[in-house]
Amino acid sequence: MSSFRTTGRKIVAIGRNYAEHAKELNNAVPTEPFFFLKPTSSYVDNGGVIEIPKGVVAHFEVELGAVIGRRAKDVRREEAMKYVAGYALGVDMTARNVQDKVKKAGLPWSTAKGFDSFTPISSFIPASSIPDPSNVNLWLKTNGNTRQNGNTKDMIFGIPQLIEHVSSIMTLEEGDLLLTGTPSGVGQTQDGDVMEAGLQLPGESRILAELKMKVKERQGGYVFKL
Amino acid sequence: MSSFRTTGRKIVAIGRNYAEHAKELNNAVPTEPFFFLKPTSSYVDNGGVIEIPKGVVAHFEVELGAVIGRRAKDVRREEAMKYVAGYALGVDMTARNVQDKVKKAGLPWSTAKGFDSFTPISSFIPASSIPDPSNVNLWLKTNGNTRQNGNTKDMIFGIPQLIEHVSSIMTLEEGDLLLTGTPSGVGQTQDGDVMEAGLQLPGESRILAELKMKVKERQGGYVFKL
Ligand SMILES: [Mg+2]
Ligand SMILES: [Mg+2]
Ligand SMILES: [Mg+2]
Repeated sequence: MSSFRTTGRKIVAIGRNYAEHAKELNNAVPTEPFFFLKPTSSYVDNGGVIEIPKGVVAHFEVELGAVIGRRAKDVRREEAMKYVAGYALGVDMTARNVQDKVKKAGLPWSTAKGFDSFTPISSFIPASSIPDPSNVNLWLKTNGNTRQNGNTKDMIFGIPQLIEHVSSIMTLEEGDLLLTGTPSGVGQTQDGDVMEAGLQLPGESRILAELKMKVKERQGGYVFKL
Repeated sequence: MSSFRTTGRKIVAIGRNYAEHAKELNNAVPTEPFFFLKPTSSYVDNGGVIEIPKGVVAHFEVELGAVIGRRAKDVRREEAMKYVAGYALGVDMTARNVQDKVKKAGLPWSTAKGFDSFTPISSFIPASSIPDPSNVNLWLKTNGNTRQNGNTKDMIFGIPQLIEHVSSIMTLEEGDLLLTGTPSGVGQTQDGDVMEAGLQLPGESRILAELKMKVKERQGGYVFKL
């Protein structure tokens, strides 16, 4: 499953799964999970470049990703962890001004979430390295300043519930990635920034997964106009 | 590319690309294309079963699909047809009541469009079989009654423009499917129906691609409540 970035076929990303984050964007705290799809063409590996299309206000959202190990359809939460092969650290890059516009118009989020390089992703972390995924620290810095610093214990819906929900709608397959939502502190990043993110077990200095990305304005391609 | 259903990684589906269809759902006719993603886990082959989750009002939308033959990023419309390996006939099944609810709330369309079996898909049609994709008839019947009967000449944005737009946002890859929107006549299908769809060149009786699906209520899985 270490090849999930090149073999997986979908990225299912949960929205508003931390109460503090829902509030910071003036959204209601959800009573059931909801999700959107990101294309696997948006993956970019550690050390790469996040390219921001012209006119786009790009926000970072650091998230714990669960990598699916085998086909999961209608899986109950009690069985769900058997389908998780491991984890990855991801950033759900979001074109916030594009998203604000489509939300008002009732249109899909796919463009706002799906640009090339909008899913920085770490290497694979085997499940055995994270005995309790509901107690992991995740943080994000830009230019050395801490912007997000959360713990997965603050998720509204845990990974088992998320897998139960998603797999009741669409079959999860080997290599699919489930992004589990972002803690508070999301904000803008722009041309010239250096973005770093990390995943750590509480009380341990060892970093389980790490991202260090350059942020650049994209040359060519889509231009967003309000 | 005949294996696109098992090897392709995304389905990009265009919304409101026929003026008469935009009007029948009381939507504005778009001035630039928009799209959403469907998961490849929603594919079901000809002869299979479309499963409607309990509580869902499911609508059919018959569409011409273009199968991408090689990596396409920032492709200009003049070059776009070089990236099309062939075609397929698809049905973009839509949970219309789920979609109506999320549109009002500004939420993603992914659930409404992404249930298992919500993308019936024909076998691959090589590009050489359709010399002019902007003049193809596509029709859909339920229980022998014609419900949709359109021609791709009524598309607002042709395939070259769609590829230019999508590939400026996200890279299209070998095996990806571009669903090009549905003509008017969309409507409900339900448990017990037989749905048939076909693709034909004007003035020819030969059917280039064909779908014959059973429609059943899904047992288990997601249940929609308003
Ligand atoms: Mg969407
Ligand atoms: Mg997110
Ligand atoms: Mg459609």
